[in-house]
Amino acid sequence: MKMDNSPARGTRDLLPATVAVRDHVLARITEVYHRYGYQRIETPALEGIDRLTGGQGGENEKLIYRVLRRGLDETVAADTALTDLVDLGLRYDLTVPLTRFYGANQASLPQPFRSFQFGPVWRAERPQKGRYRQFYQCDIDLLGEETVLAEVELIEATTEALAAAGLSGATVRVSDRRFLSALAASVGLPESEWTGLFITLDKLDKIGWDGVRAELSGRGLDDAAVDRLQASITGLQGGDQATLDKRLLDALPGLPEQVVADLADTAAALAGVDGLAWEFDPTLVRGMGYYTGQIFEITHPASKGSIAGGGRYDKLIGRSLGREVPACGFSIGFERIVDLIEGSTATDAVAVLYEADVPLPVVTATAREVRQGGRTASAVRRRGKFGAQLGKLQEWGFTSVLHVKDAVTPPEERPLGER
Amino acid sequence: MKMDNSPARGTRDLLPATVAVRDHVLARITEVYHRYGYQRIETPALEGIDRLTGGQGGENEKLIYRVLRRGLDETVAADTALTDLVDLGLRYDLTVPLTRFYGANQASLPQPFRSFQFGPVWRAERPQKGRYRQFYQCDIDLLGEETVLAEVELIEATTEALAAAGLSGATVRVSDRRFLSALAASVGLPESEWTGLFITLDKLDKIGWDGVRAELSGRGLDDAAVDRLQASITGLQGGDQATLDKRLLDALPGLPEQVVADLADTAAALAGVDGLAWEFDPTLVRGMGYYTGQIFEITHPASKGSIAGGGRYDKLIGRSLGREVPACGFSIGFERIVDLIEGSTATDAVAVLYEADVPLPVVTATAREVRQGGRTASAVRRRGKFGAQLGKLQEWGFTSVLHVKDAVTPPEERPLGER
Repeated sequence: MKMDNSPARGTRDLLPATVAVRDHVLARITEVYHRYGYQRIETPALEGIDRLTGGQGGENEKLIYRVLRRGLDETVAADTALTDLVDLGLRYDLTVPLTRFYGANQASLPQPFRSFQFGPVWRAERPQKGRYRQFYQCDIDLLGEETVLAEVELIEATTEALAAAGLSGATVRVSDRRFLSALAASVGLPESEWTGLFITLDKLDKIGWDGVRAELSGRGLDDAAVDRLQASITGLQGGDQATLDKRLLDALPGLPEQVVADLADTAAALAGVDGLAWEFDPTLVRGMGYYTGQIFEITHPASKGSIAGGGRYDKLIGRSLGREVPACGFSIGFERIVDLIEGSTATDAVAVLYEADVPLPVVTATAREVRQGGRTASAVRRRGKFGAQLGKLQEWGFTSVLHVKDAVTPPEERPLGER
Repeated sequence: MKMDNSPARGTRDLLPATVAVRDHVLARITEVYHRYGYQRIETPALEGIDRLTGGQGGENEKLIYRVLRRGLDETVAADTALTDLVDLGLRYDLTVPLTRFYGANQASLPQPFRSFQFGPVWRAERPQKGRYRQFYQCDIDLLGEETVLAEVELIEATTEALAAAGLSGATVRVSDRRFLSALAASVGLPESEWTGLFITLDKLDKIGWDGVRAELSGRGLDDAAVDRLQASITGLQGGDQATLDKRLLDALPGLPEQVVADLADTAAALAGVDGLAWEFDPTLVRGMGYYTGQIFEITHPASKGSIAGGGRYDKLIGRSLGREVPACGFSIGFERIVDLIEGSTATDAVAVLYEADVPLPVVTATAREVRQGGRTASAVRRRGKFGAQLGKLQEWGFTSVLHVKDAVTPPEERPLGER
């Protein structure tokens, strides 16, 4: 009986060529993050359902795969709530588990702690092209560092990691949630309206100032307020980052001193990084509600959306730990970048092509000898037409062939493919 | 509020030092398997519940984490069966997904296909020391190879991989399910009793012949039959593997020719592997019901249980594919071996220890300079007593310190730990 062998809806199998590219990219990223002292940790895929639905995941909490308790009766009693049947869920990101991990293990961890995570997460999203219900996240987080040393290091490390993976030419955009709050306050908006303002600002590059102005009028901002907002933002776009502090105070005189000093420090330290392209972008917002300070995204000419994003989230760990721990993180859009990177992982691989009547010890010894030279060798039986089989071997990634005709003739190596 | 930050019951967090050992072991294993042409694939953690409960998993099917369908009403209607609420489950091994993967992707795969898998599996076992509900499996499988080339290659590759990981001195035990069947038939046992006989034989090293004989009498075997069985087995234990075929026919004259020829071929090819310790072990049984030919296990003086196991399973893939595909696999007990391997992954790491008033660009530039020399460097702020902080840095794995006192004094490197 032939069964339907498709993977579960919305998930996918990864074939060898795809895995090879992914492993290559991950190895390059890992090497860079290790050099910055980031240490890989792992947490279980399953977390308690109460933690996963605690509110920090926003919309993602609606997409959780929920896991049945064990040992339940196989028939459900009337009026049972689904929630009574569930105790665990699959994680939808790596940040919720990290906060739990830090709470559980902080006594054994360095201070500050540089965390590197790479692992699958699950979201039961409506299946669509290029989006999968199981996908990998690749995060670094610096926990316990209250100064913008964290921001600067995360930005430098992540751009270097992306370049090592083959994506040089990236641009970093930096903003600050505290700046955005001050901006919203400066035009007299009540705090309940700020999120709406930010969502509108985030669309500036798509809908232009006309579109933004129209939306903001709809939110009850008068023309004079919108004019001030537009002037503040325009004055901060582009420009010389070395004078960012002056421009910030010009644009928004009420901006708290600490915010200006932090952004100036970030600017000064990033100025020392060779070849780094970055700018303050007053319209960068980022979705998650938990950011408390500087936020950042990386864009690349090859990708429409951003390829990495992150920011400071000083309040989040406190919720599980009972005391505040400053924290800052950067997440590479791993699934997005592996699609951008050309798969050039071709490596030397020898097919030991043996006739069916060659004694097994001769076949295995021939392959062994090639391997002892540090090369890859796999035994493959001769079948069908010789030329057709050579074509297949090449298609499968072999780069040369050793044809073992019998037990005595020394096989000669023959390259496959373009001469 | 401080929450309970423990990982979900029966699971665990992996801290940096543990991950470093695991990554090191995995990298050594991967390097060897790649050299044999095994290609890593990945399948999703979630599989359809019908496939997971199809019978091939034996007792493991009782331990599946079941996942709720999405979009259910939050209140369950009366008399609903739990199974109606579930469509997916977490995989309990990597073999079920492999057979599905091969069925779905065979047209794009080399022939034969050498698969390497490393990934987590989940079993809701009763929590006990050293056993976790999420753990990693590390499997190679050779699909589409009907001769014992497969068995020989898997044994050679796996012992080499274990040695590369630091576990040399392993012993391979080989048996054959067809031999065991012939043995059971030779004493006149009906087929329904064979599994019971095998379970008893498997315990020979623990309960000795007295214990085995007692159990077999209880199963209705007369003394003469048990004598014959004991003689057959004793004649095959130890001895010269080069004469295995003769000894097999002496011990069990009715053994099919193909079984003898296959074991002789395995013996002849393994004889060519330098330093390989192996033996035919007529009491080796292995649990899974799906084996059809040679089976094997690896033991090591440092471990009580086996550290790897596998065998031929020629009928399993046919169930999903609709045509038979010969298959043979070997699984390394990854969780078991990482516990045996001493964590000697200490690497050079420099702490850039800066006083709080040093300008950020000076700190980041100092760390950058160390990294540009290819070394690991992390910035850490000076806090508390100097000696105590040096002690902590060493404990956290730093091997030296660069003390940045101010913006002008060139920092000097100072090694940590034993002089």
